[in-house]
Amino acid sequence: MPLSLNARAAAVVDQCLADRETLKIGVSEVAGARVVDFGQASVGGLNAGSMLARICLADLGTVALRSGDFAGRPTAFLDVSTDFPLEACLMSQYAGWQIAVGDFFAMGSGPLRAVATVEKLFGEFDFTESPEVGVLVLETASDVTADVVDFVTQKSGIPRESLTICVAPTASLAGTIQVIARSVETALHQLHERDFDIRQVVSACGSAPLPGVAKSDLDAIGRTNDAILYGGRAVLWVDTTDAQIESIGPLIPSSASPSHGQPFLSLFEAAGRDFYKLDPALFSVAEIVFHNVRTGRAFHYGECVPDLVSQSTGF
Amino acid sequence: MPLSLNARAAAVVDQCLADRETLKIGVSEVAGARVVDFGQASVGGLNAGSMLARICLADLGTVALRSGDFAGRPTAFLDVSTDFPLEACLMSQYAGWQIAVGDFFAMGSGPLRAVATVEKLFGEFDFTESPEVGVLVLETASDVTADVVDFVTQKSGIPRESLTICVAPTASLAGTIQVIARSVETALHQLHERDFDIRQVVSACGSAPLPGVAKSDLDAIGRTNDAILYGGRAVLWVDTTDAQIESIGPLIPSSASPSHGQPFLSLFEAAGRDFYKLDPALFSVAEIVFHNVRTGRAFHYGECVPDLVSQSTGF
Amino acid sequence: MPLSLNARAAAVVDQCLADRETLKIGVSEVAGARVVDFGQASVGGLNAGSMLARICLADLGTVALRSGDFAGRPTAFLDVSTDFPLEACLMSQYAGWQIAVGDFFAMGSGPLRAVATVEKLFGEFDFTESPEVGVLVLETASDVTADVVDFVTQKSGIPRESLTICVAPTASLAGTIQVIARSVETALHQLHERDFDIRQVVSACGSAPLPGVAKSDLDAIGRTNDAILYGGRAVLWVDTTDAQIESIGPLIPSSASPSHGQPFLSLFEAAGRDFYKLDPALFSVAEIVFHNVRTGRAFHYGECVPDLVSQSTGF
Repeated sequence: MPLSLNARAAAVVDQCLADRETLKIGVSEVAGARVVDFGQASVGGLNAGSMLARICLADLGTVALRSGDFAGRPTAFLDVSTDFPLEACLMSQYAGWQIAVGDFFAMGSGPLRAVATVEKLFGEFDFTESPEVGVLVLETASDVTADVVDFVTQKSGIPRESLTICVAPTASLAGTIQVIARSVETALHQLHERDFDIRQVVSACGSAPLPGVAKSDLDAIGRTNDAILYGGRAVLWVDTTDAQIESIGPLIPSSASPSHGQPFLSLFEAAGRDFYKLDPALFSVAEIVFHNVRTGRAFHYGECVPDLVSQSTGF
Repeated sequence: MPLSLNARAAAVVDQCLADRETLKIGVSEVAGARVVDFGQASVGGLNAGSMLARICLADLGTVALRSGDFAGRPTAFLDVSTDFPLEACLMSQYAGWQIAVGDFFAMGSGPLRAVATVEKLFGEFDFTESPEVGVLVLETASDVTADVVDFVTQKSGIPRESLTICVAPTASLAGTIQVIARSVETALHQLHERDFDIRQVVSACGSAPLPGVAKSDLDAIGRTNDAILYGGRAVLWVDTTDAQIESIGPLIPSSASPSHGQPFLSLFEAAGRDFYKLDPALFSVAEIVFHNVRTGRAFHYGECVPDLVSQSTGF
Repeated sequence: MPLSLNARAAAVVDQCLADRETLKIGVSEVAGARVVDFGQASVGGLNAGSMLARICLADLGTVALRSGDFAGRPTAFLDVSTDFPLEACLMSQYAGWQIAVGDFFAMGSGPLRAVATVEKLFGEFDFTESPEVGVLVLETASDVTADVVDFVTQKSGIPRESLTICVAPTASLAGTIQVIARSVETALHQLHERDFDIRQVVSACGSAPLPGVAKSDLDAIGRTNDAILYGGRAVLWVDTTDAQIESIGPLIPSSASPSHGQPFLSLFEAAGRDFYKLDPALFSVAEIVFHNVRTGRAFHYGECVPDLVSQSTGF
């Protein structure tokens, strides 16, 4: 890697700030750290969301908005691609770091996770970095407080003046986009859960339909999950045995879960709004293709359920 | 806004001129003003058309050519998106300024409209700017004359040496593209006609199928209108009440007009080639989706009529 | 042309090398020439493939990966477009230069062809250039040797220290992508075979579905050809008579060949793996649209055969 994940993300943040009026984002200082607002007090937008998704990916992937058709309606899609599936998606984009400080709670994503390495994922891949700057992305409607900055500084060792925290609520345009840009990441995470070695994924691309912005963060969690679970698709180039794909592949799409077929929000409510009580097998894309570069064979599992995606956005 | 609409457009013009051989465009001086030819004596092309569309949008939107399928045939689409719907589309891209000087007639678009402000639209939004440079786009096959430059200079107050006029006939590749890039603009204009406050449109994207270049400007007007009216689609993120969308939304797609279903050219001929005798309700996209960010609800109106688009290009 | 084709391609090579870790490509020196490896010992990837395709096109076209659907499966497509069909596709991208030196054999593409001009194509268009640097692209799994460098230097007159040779096997991700980016080129070459003057093609765009990477170069030749022959589509803006399109057009899609309908590999084997014994009419896209800018009429020939594309990648 020519630059650390954090240095790469920080370069995109700098680009965003240079263009902040046209991105409709804001910036402030909290306890010495830089907080960039993509959708709390700031309006944000389509472009802000794509930039936020690039920051999440440590700029090791492409993000593009494309006009298309889903369930017979004009629909914007988020296309993503990466030649660094492990680094961009699992080590950076995956929202695996729970930041709980007093009343403040947010799922943390972005490359600062690879510095703090509080998740067991990093030990499994023996991945860490000690960059000069750090970039964290928080999916939250709450204000970042001095206590949050202290917590993050302490866990990562990055001094507050070198720390950037990007924020957007799920129920904002940029926040929705950064979640919908997770088609490939979600597929990879499910593969990891099934003990597929993600280092065997060479490159990947994916897409998911962009739902409207929800009224509340709870609704937003419902519809963004539905868009991925029932509308997300991924294509992976892997270097492994066909036997491994044939044994693990059928378990990857969300249809492998007994919970499949229900709107996410109804499952979430039934689980007492506790993510950890939901079937982990549900968190994946609807449909996946594996291209095995070792054997040249292709494999296809799952299918989209457009009606469920439409239903959760009230069409 | 970090820069004026005109300064933003001028920066794209400069980029075009630096790359003018690969864009196949030309430049000349008329009465001290700079005239950039995207499709009159110059050939222009796909890339020139996309750049011209960006100039029309004051570079506050994205323009992308995408390969797709329409009416069962390989078709190029123009995808557009913007986080500044009012400024990019209504204050700049909309072809609302009639430039009639002697025999010369052209519809003017681009950000110089916001300096000249001869249209009542600008008063309605209390929008104007006084930039150091001005950029006007004329959809015309006629040569820009010294009289045209005088007229424009006088109306805008921009000195001729600071003025750029970009030209392309409708019946040119770049001219066709800049019109087909108007899916979102057309939807917004119809919303404005129906008294929807465009400041409530937060962001938008859209697409329309790119027809071939027509033999005459009249035919070109026919087929580009058909491509938008019967093949254009828009997705808008709005911040308003659901009641307002439910009352105005059904009136927005072109199907709300009794004229809907006829090729544009036949309607135009029947109206004596007078745009102002046509039903204003016809000028819109075929299909529209509203995402209300205030309530999280989505609404869908209209549908495409691919056969009518094919028919007007002689397939 | 503001720069020579070779200077344009060399600028993209420089950009690739500046970013070589994120492109996962390698560079070495062979007999004084620069060899850039996009997929031999280096892994390469989606991004490397797109850059390699741009080099082939002398950077006179766009190349974009797009998520889509083919034969009911999530599929990545390669979209290409150009305003310089003759220069970008025939004078540069077409793999028309056979480099046979001892045991080494590869088809050569890229702008160095226009310097060596060993193919009769260049005489037909009276096209040649004498640039200061040269860029050749070789589709090969074999190492470039000093003898290959000598041969290329001798034929082109470009000194070895000014020569760049980019390599990728067909059975690599970047190699597959650079072939799948040939939808427009293949259509143009077939038009040329049918005596259509390519100077009459003003602009063009096209797309083809990206198959997985094959296990062997032989399989890769099979599936990449199938993707173009049975899944490739092109849209051409031409300036000619309708009569010429009507007489030549029906002969352009691959369906004009009696060999159409068979997987490429079975035809290739039946021909003793000799390209020159195959029906030349087969080498084309599945489907083509002509927009005649002289008359405004559009013409559509051929259709895709998705099952044949799926079959050759083992779905």
